[in-house]
Amino acid sequence: MPRPNVREKLIEAGLNTLMQKGFNGCGVQEITDAAGVPKGSFYNHFASKEALGAEIVERVSQNNPRRAILADTSLPPLERLRRHLAALIERAVENDFERGCLLGNFSAEMSSQSPLIRERLHMLSTSWTEEIAAVVREAQADGSIRSNTPAEDLAAFLLDAYEGTLLRVRIEKNGAAFDRLMKLVFTQILV
Amino acid sequence: MPRPNVREKLIEAGLNTLMQKGFNGCGVQEITDAAGVPKGSFYNHFASKEALGAEIVERVSQNNPRRAILADTSLPPLERLRRHLAALIERAVENDFERGCLLGNFSAEMSSQSPLIRERLHMLSTSWTEEIAAVVREAQADGSIRSNTPAEDLAAFLLDAYEGTLLRVRIEKNGAAFDRLMKLVFTQILV
Repeated sequence: MPRPNVREKLIEAGLNTLMQKGFNGCGVQEITDAAGVPKGSFYNHFASKEALGAEIVERVSQNNPRRAILADTSLPPLERLRRHLAALIERAVENDFERGCLLGNFSAEMSSQSPLIRERLHMLSTSWTEEIAAVVREAQADGSIRSNTPAEDLAAFLLDAYEGTLLRVRIEKNGAAFDRLMKLVFTQILV
Repeated sequence: MPRPNVREKLIEAGLNTLMQKGFNGCGVQEITDAAGVPKGSFYNHFASKEALGAEIVERVSQNNPRRAILADTSLPPLERLRRHLAALIERAVENDFERGCLLGNFSAEMSSQSPLIRERLHMLSTSWTEEIAAVVREAQADGSIRSNTPAEDLAAFLLDAYEGTLLRVRIEKNGAAFDRLMKLVFTQILV
C-alpha cells in the first residue's frame, strides 16, 4: 500500500489537531509535528492554516460514515434518521465529549473571522441538511413523520438542535442532554 | 460619577474582544489596548487570560436584561418565553450575526481546554436553564404549554436549540433559521 502523501498527512493531522485545540489554539508547527513532516513542507501544500482549515471542512462532508447511514435505503427512513443521530452521539461519547463537531466548532470560532472557512461551512451545513431533508421527506411520504412542517425545516431544526445539544454535553461531560434530545425528537417533534 | 476602575474596564473590553476574536484568537495585549490600560496592569487584576475569561462568564449571567424578561411576572409565562427568545434573536440581528453568544462560543472553543472556564459555563448554563424551566413550569400550570414533558427537559432543549440555531445563522448570515426556530417552538414544540 502506498504511504499517504504529505498533503494527506497534513489534512489528517490537521483535522485531529484543529478538533482538539481549535483553529486559533494551535499553530502550523503543531500540525506538522502531528503529521510527522517538516514544518517547511506545509507551505508547499497549503497557502495558509486557513486554506488547510477550509480544505478540512470540505473533506469531512465527503465519505462520512455517519452521513452514509442516511442513504442506506435498506432501512425505513425514520430508522435511518434514528441511527444517524445515534451514530453522531456515539462518536461524542467515544471521545468523552472532548472534541465536538467540526461544523459546530468552526461555526462558533471562525464564521466571523474567515470568509473562506465560513463559505465552506455553509456548503457543509447545506448539503448535510439536504441529506437529512431527503430522508424526512421519505418518512413523511410513508407516514412515519408528520407532514405539517416542510421537510427542509424539520431537517435544519434537527441538525441545529443536535449541534446545540453537543455544546451542552461538552460542558456537562455526560450524555443526559443527548438522551433528552433523542426522546423529544422521536416521541414528539417528528411524530 | 466615578470612572470605572481598571478591573471593570478589563472585564468590559475583555468581553467585547473575546466575543469578536474568540479566546485563542486574541492576546492580553489586545484586551488591554481595547480597555485603554497599560498591559502591565492586567496581571494586577487577573492571574491569566483564563481567569479573566472565567470571570466574564460569571458576569454575563448577572444583570442580563434578556434573562430579566423571564422574571417579569406582569406578563403571562408563555409571552415571557417568547420575548426572551425574541430578545436573544434581536441581539444577534443587531450585530449582523457576527458575535454569537458567550455560552455557545466558549462551550465550543474552551470546554476541552480549560476546566475552570468549563465549570463556569456549566454554572451559567444551569442557572439559565433553571430560569427558563421556572417559566415553562408556570406555563404548564396555566395550560399554555403542554404538560407531557418535564419543564426542565423542555427548558434545556429550548436553550440548546437556540444555541444550535445561532451557530447556523452565523454561517448563513441571515435570520431565516431563527424564524424557523420561533415558528416550530411556539406552534408545535411547546403547545
